[in-house]
Amino acid sequence: MDIISGGVCAPKGFKANGIHCGIRKNKTKRDLALIVSEKICTSAAVYTTNLVKGAPLLLDMEHLKDGKAQAVICNSGNANTCNANGLEIASDMAKLVEEYTGVKENDVIVASTGVIGQPLSLEPIKNGMKELADGLGDNSKFASEAIMTTDLAEKEIAFSFEIGGKTCKIGGIAKGSGMIHPNMATMLVFITTDVAITSQMLSKALKTDIASTFNMLSIDGDTSTNDMVTVLANGMAENPVIDKEDENFAIFAKALNSLNIWLCKKIAGDGEGATKTLECITEGADTLEAAKKVAKSVVCSSLLKAAMFGADANWGRVLCAIGYSGADVDVTKVAVKFKSPKGEILVCENGAGVDFSEEKAKEILLENEIDILVSLGDGKFGATAWGCDLTYDYVKINGDYRT
Amino acid sequence: MDIISGGVCAPKGFKANGIHCGIRKNKTKRDLALIVSEKICTSAAVYTTNLVKGAPLLLDMEHLKDGKAQAVICNSGNANTCNANGLEIASDMAKLVEEYTGVKENDVIVASTGVIGQPLSLEPIKNGMKELADGLGDNSKFASEAIMTTDLAEKEIAFSFEIGGKTCKIGGIAKGSGMIHPNMATMLVFITTDVAITSQMLSKALKTDIASTFNMLSIDGDTSTNDMVTVLANGMAENPVIDKEDENFAIFAKALNSLNIWLCKKIAGDGEGATKTLECITEGADTLEAAKKVAKSVVCSSLLKAAMFGADANWGRVLCAIGYSGADVDVTKVAVKFKSPKGEILVCENGAGVDFSEEKAKEILLENEIDILVSLGDGKFGATAWGCDLTYDYVKINGDYRT
Repeated sequence: MDIISGGVCAPKGFKANGIHCGIRKNKTKRDLALIVSEKICTSAAVYTTNLVKGAPLLLDMEHLKDGKAQAVICNSGNANTCNANGLEIASDMAKLVEEYTGVKENDVIVASTGVIGQPLSLEPIKNGMKELADGLGDNSKFASEAIMTTDLAEKEIAFSFEIGGKTCKIGGIAKGSGMIHPNMATMLVFITTDVAITSQMLSKALKTDIASTFNMLSIDGDTSTNDMVTVLANGMAENPVIDKEDENFAIFAKALNSLNIWLCKKIAGDGEGATKTLECITEGADTLEAAKKVAKSVVCSSLLKAAMFGADANWGRVLCAIGYSGADVDVTKVAVKFKSPKGEILVCENGAGVDFSEEKAKEILLENEIDILVSLGDGKFGATAWGCDLTYDYVKINGDYRT
Repeated sequence: MDIISGGVCAPKGFKANGIHCGIRKNKTKRDLALIVSEKICTSAAVYTTNLVKGAPLLLDMEHLKDGKAQAVICNSGNANTCNANGLEIASDMAKLVEEYTGVKENDVIVASTGVIGQPLSLEPIKNGMKELADGLGDNSKFASEAIMTTDLAEKEIAFSFEIGGKTCKIGGIAKGSGMIHPNMATMLVFITTDVAITSQMLSKALKTDIASTFNMLSIDGDTSTNDMVTVLANGMAENPVIDKEDENFAIFAKALNSLNIWLCKKIAGDGEGATKTLECITEGADTLEAAKKVAKSVVCSSLLKAAMFGADANWGRVLCAIGYSGADVDVTKVAVKFKSPKGEILVCENGAGVDFSEEKAKEILLENEIDILVSLGDGKFGATAWGCDLTYDYVKINGDYRT
């Protein structure tokens, strides 16, 4: 499996674009994205578990009932959520895609991200549609820029791999910076692939994969109202259609997993105000659930996140987070290490502190990719969760986001 | 019921003191507290639910098995948690109290608060005991200062009330600023009363009360390892002994509730880095559990907490927190108001935004006591939760607390 360029346009038959249409005041910030496949695709999606759901998601659930889609339109700057006319606007966005690209309205996936509770005007979208559609091409980068909100970097990746002698490709773009918390599709992720796969198997691959990828990611403990992960597969790689859990399915699942882990790490590192990516890797748990609970609890702890910002080897906060994780852990068996490109240091063993060099620990923790290795000594299960540090800038960004 | 002075020394027969013994480097900060009752007390306690428990708590569970206690010793600056010799040190602290006050070792409640995972030296405590015991008197204030960690203000209150023609008193001190989250005794609270009450009824009153007070308080979502609430009742008010759920029990429960709510608000307002106290009051829930879940979820949202710091009426974040609270809520019936001493403003009705004056909202939110009023339109249950805003100083305090 190789990393390739092109993002969502890397797989055969996909075009994309992103423009500034005027939803955002800043004219240099693109705010409207479009992805279109030449052929109709099998498609699968997972949605936020928040009871308050953005209007576009309600529309998408309808549109994806048949497991088919062909285009994605997404705006940033406004979430189109908690608005009386939200569903109407989302539906109008799909109609505009049909008008300008020929893709049928109910094969369009609509997404919105930004402020909640402010009416979204169709006007700028309508006015921008011609430019958006005319510019469709190898422009994954523009699309990835257009879906950003408080993100600082676009998140775009693609991989190539082989199934049944055919070269297949998978590409993805993601947006996600705040209001991200495990147990749902927690951000916007649009994945394209030219693999031939049934919608049933595509859905299976996606749902299985997010349990160990996007659902193990937390920026701030807030579960968004608007987020989802969607995959469109147009079959243009001409591999034998994947319709069961065979070797080919495993290859595709592996490619999907590599893509999703890459995007998870990028999203974590671009968490609002973040200066460090945190990765908690647990091992020795007696169940997978316990391994996951502990890993998530550690990366979600505000106190640990703040300590990591300060490069403070405050392992007591790791123990504390393990203790309230809800997992049935024997704390007297727990060992903790901090690790980064500068090395690795044992700070706790058998649930108690060990002598360690504060200087070495500081050197390790001053890096911007920190692994927290937790050994539970209770069994054979492990898990990984991703997060980021808690910084002054998180407070700044969220103290005055709306006005 | 009247507020009176004297804190934990207000009830008859209680003396207290607090000194600097040297656990902390700062010589102007008291770090060792002692509360002693003239007579043996019935006593009850609730403890943190964290699986990682401070050594003192393990000792206290033993000491309180008989429902009796007579003294409390508490140090700040070191949590005596995750240390190999923790239980031994805690036990030695109880022995020192016996040596210097005559109160039997197993009638002593021991508590420690501060950094986790650094061995606690008995030396400074031993050296300070004579001064601490000699100074026992009407010094609730010194005790309340000595249990503070990152707290900025001491938390001390007392009430007087009448039972069976006798004047009774209840007093309390509390420590709590970070690592505070619902569903356990989430901070150190020491309550004294001269009411005559059986240990069984005292325990019942405490456990019932914390469900709507300390368990509805969150500063940062982190559940501490060391915290507890204890009550000592020495019976010196000479009221008829409370031994069942009668009218007198109700009077005592009311006094306990007033004391605990007062301390909850104080702890919330003194949350690490906080500039504002947040109170979320829900009504119209179809169950008490739903009312509580929604109220807690709102005060726990990092995004909302940051918005409140910025005095930004970002009600979408309230809706978002309601949506992921886990309560089964019909979001189309939700109404939200913000309220402070400057007035009250409706910002959301039927789950959607309403027109409101941003100027008026700003004026309301610039105050330092903010109520978030959530109406669910689904039933007759309500609840209140307390919290605080998320600020630069929270990050500062926790980015470098240990070193």
